[in-house]
Amino acid sequence: MCQGNDVNCPEFRLHYRMFKEELNVERRSFLKSSFAAGGGAAALAAGGLSLVTPALAQASAAKRPGAPAYHYLPANADTVHWGYFSKKLKPQVEIDPGDIVTIETLTHHAGDDLERMVTGDEGAESVFLWTKDKKGVDRRGAGPTDPKVYKKGSGEGMGVHIMTGPVYVRGAEPGDILEVRILDCAPRPSANPEFKGKSFGSNAAANWGFHYNDMLDGAKREVVTIYEVDATGGRSWAQAVYNFKWVPQVDPFGVMHETIDYPGVPVDHSKTQRNYDALKGVRLPIRPHFGTLGLAPAEADYVDTVPPSYTGGNIDNWRIGKGAVMYYPVSVEGALLSVGDPHASQGDSELCGTAIECSLTGTFQLVLHKKADLAGTPLEELNYPMLETKDEWLVHGFSVSNYLAELGADAQSEIYKKSSVDSALRDAFRKMRHFLMTTKGLTEDEAISLMSIGVDFGVTQVVDGNWGCHAIVKKDIFAARV
Amino acid sequence: MCQGNDVNCPEFRLHYRMFKEELNVERRSFLKSSFAAGGGAAALAAGGLSLVTPALAQASAAKRPGAPAYHYLPANADTVHWGYFSKKLKPQVEIDPGDIVTIETLTHHAGDDLERMVTGDEGAESVFLWTKDKKGVDRRGAGPTDPKVYKKGSGEGMGVHIMTGPVYVRGAEPGDILEVRILDCAPRPSANPEFKGKSFGSNAAANWGFHYNDMLDGAKREVVTIYEVDATGGRSWAQAVYNFKWVPQVDPFGVMHETIDYPGVPVDHSKTQRNYDALKGVRLPIRPHFGTLGLAPAEADYVDTVPPSYTGGNIDNWRIGKGAVMYYPVSVEGALLSVGDPHASQGDSELCGTAIECSLTGTFQLVLHKKADLAGTPLEELNYPMLETKDEWLVHGFSVSNYLAELGADAQSEIYKKSSVDSALRDAFRKMRHFLMTTKGLTEDEAISLMSIGVDFGVTQVVDGNWGCHAIVKKDIFAARV
Repeated sequence: MCQGNDVNCPEFRLHYRMFKEELNVERRSFLKSSFAAGGGAAALAAGGLSLVTPALAQASAAKRPGAPAYHYLPANADTVHWGYFSKKLKPQVEIDPGDIVTIETLTHHAGDDLERMVTGDEGAESVFLWTKDKKGVDRRGAGPTDPKVYKKGSGEGMGVHIMTGPVYVRGAEPGDILEVRILDCAPRPSANPEFKGKSFGSNAAANWGFHYNDMLDGAKREVVTIYEVDATGGRSWAQAVYNFKWVPQVDPFGVMHETIDYPGVPVDHSKTQRNYDALKGVRLPIRPHFGTLGLAPAEADYVDTVPPSYTGGNIDNWRIGKGAVMYYPVSVEGALLSVGDPHASQGDSELCGTAIECSLTGTFQLVLHKKADLAGTPLEELNYPMLETKDEWLVHGFSVSNYLAELGADAQSEIYKKSSVDSALRDAFRKMRHFLMTTKGLTEDEAISLMSIGVDFGVTQVVDGNWGCHAIVKKDIFAARV
Repeated sequence: MCQGNDVNCPEFRLHYRMFKEELNVERRSFLKSSFAAGGGAAALAAGGLSLVTPALAQASAAKRPGAPAYHYLPANADTVHWGYFSKKLKPQVEIDPGDIVTIETLTHHAGDDLERMVTGDEGAESVFLWTKDKKGVDRRGAGPTDPKVYKKGSGEGMGVHIMTGPVYVRGAEPGDILEVRILDCAPRPSANPEFKGKSFGSNAAANWGFHYNDMLDGAKREVVTIYEVDATGGRSWAQAVYNFKWVPQVDPFGVMHETIDYPGVPVDHSKTQRNYDALKGVRLPIRPHFGTLGLAPAEADYVDTVPPSYTGGNIDNWRIGKGAVMYYPVSVEGALLSVGDPHASQGDSELCGTAIECSLTGTFQLVLHKKADLAGTPLEELNYPMLETKDEWLVHGFSVSNYLAELGADAQSEIYKKSSVDSALRDAFRKMRHFLMTTKGLTEDEAISLMSIGVDFGVTQVVDGNWGCHAIVKKDIFAARV
């Protein structure tokens, strides 16, 4: 049986009801756990080690209209937007703060193997539909939509991720903080009976990868590896099925794609050579997570999903999975949360340009913290996306912290000229300093000493234009601090 | 009682004998463990997950003259060299391959609090001795030793670490690989009765720190924080004792040090203001390790200890502690291993310029692998320092991989102009690619895909001129590979 997360399952409705019931239990235990409790006794017992103080949790809970409601947002051609965030988008679901919503997400790399990742999957089929006469989702990217202007396709592939949403959170306004609790996150089973019980993902070593101009033979090539992931939960690892070198593909509208330059181009495998010997015996631990999760920014109408920014988006940190909590500054009315770019696994750096890009279904609880209640709490002044796990707090530094505001009218192209780990590390340092001073009341000198001996800086990604460094501090460092 | 690692203990000889006996047991269990076994059955049982193949282990063991001997190298003015590696140095101890040697190391920051880190400690006192007439160790750094030329002091502080050694490994020649197993690593207890059972370390937020030109008020200041570390093994965390702002210090020879610009200057605390409220209630997990561990390079006679390079040195990776194994390419006859820069704890990046700089005593087994035996093994072609832990393999990338060879005659000053995480990441990528292709026989395309989804890239340090990025791959990824 499916886990209530496979809309193609004949008994989906029954399974989904069972899932919701289980979720109630899980949710209660989740709320009892210390890290995301945000609620009185539990948080106190853990030494107040949540970013949400008990007082703030009470204030935020008091504004809820009632008990949390459940919502389900499937992914199909009507519920996704492809390649951009936008404050102009019509919400797909409106929820009250505190509500729980299950959101299906589709990988934009499913076209690399339609048979395994699309065939038989009604939602995915509607999104990937592309014949010479019809395209399920025409616009892909924040670029031009005028056929007289674009060259590769509508939206020009300036932004690539299939985003489900947005979710409108009632009462959310600029200056508030949206807390996003990831209650669950699981691979989407293949709907093709031939691949029952399995999920699949694609890893493209692509032209935007860090390695691309640095191959041993000096040649340039793009190589796609298809990975198999267990969808039943029985195995914790992925393994390669085959790989192939990208060869020029003509899309159904007749446009030639010499490289991977537009998302969702259906790969014609009669033109590729599939190598089924790839990575034999290699087992990659899976770390299911959402590469792109965030809110619509106010700065522009259509924003390329590739570069991450202060409202989150394509942070590509593999720690943003089940059990994690993200905090985002709300930039527009209703917050407008969208989710996409699901990954089965990724390493710090996402070196070759992509992760194991694999459709996932997530369940989220969205808690709103109003600006007026933030004063004196750790969330005051939070103007960057923060991650909280059971044991750690993480800040995310970028080459340019808020590139839309800082780089002028051409920000969305300029950012690709600013890619640098050095500047992302600088930003991560400044954010971690701010966090330690704000959250734990350290002096600047204390924060700097602590950062050198108790904070780990890592490379989040070097492939999203606005490159990222993260800084990790363990919560228990502060367990004895009054 | 001491652990046989405190030369100031009145019963040191007895305790050392007991320690050696324990070590025999520990060593046997260490050798039985899979990761460093390098010896037949154990390595095979773990799927061959050591860099040392059973055949290589046999070949290397066959060249040992007999059972491993023990050696003890204390740290004192006669056994240390300060601030440089050098192929010209007379060995402090000569050993056979496979021998075990316990080496005391002293932090070069002990002058920040002589009372806690030097007083009563015969070895440390001999090293830190500095009156107007006498200096225990005159030369500190690879710089000029002519009083008519230097400004700050002999060696000019071009290199700062107190290095114990070198250890000469009989039979070691350029092209061989030296495997350094860290069997033990423990804090050196304070010899001052007032601080019995405690060790101390210093963290200097110094002028070479990443933060230094980026303070909130735009001012420049250096701040030293003294940390206390439990020396009995009962506690796994460090805590701050006090901090102070560096104020100009006149050394015993009359030279004024406006900033921290020469190692071992005894701090006169009648001129500082000590703040005992620093980091109250903050507990930093300790990760004892050696910041600087490596071999003398062939490229120059005197080499600044600060920038790490292909023979190791100041890698500043906190994972180089107990249970870890390092592999270094041998560059000169006898290998000439030196150890120093002991740390109680450090985060990835060593942001402010130093770790918790804290004297440690380490026990090492040095295994030699001859060039002629390396063909076809994972250690073939290894021309960079590699780290193996129980579960992981790590490569270390630097801004310039072998700066002594690549940057010409002025390499030792030029390297400080090349500091960059971006280029260190490039180097780490290339080394990890090489490692995966050499060790596991992956194709370049397989290696690149794996690096994006199963390798984590982190920032090792951004304060040693030749900045570092490391790449971590988990061994069990390959457990099922034939």
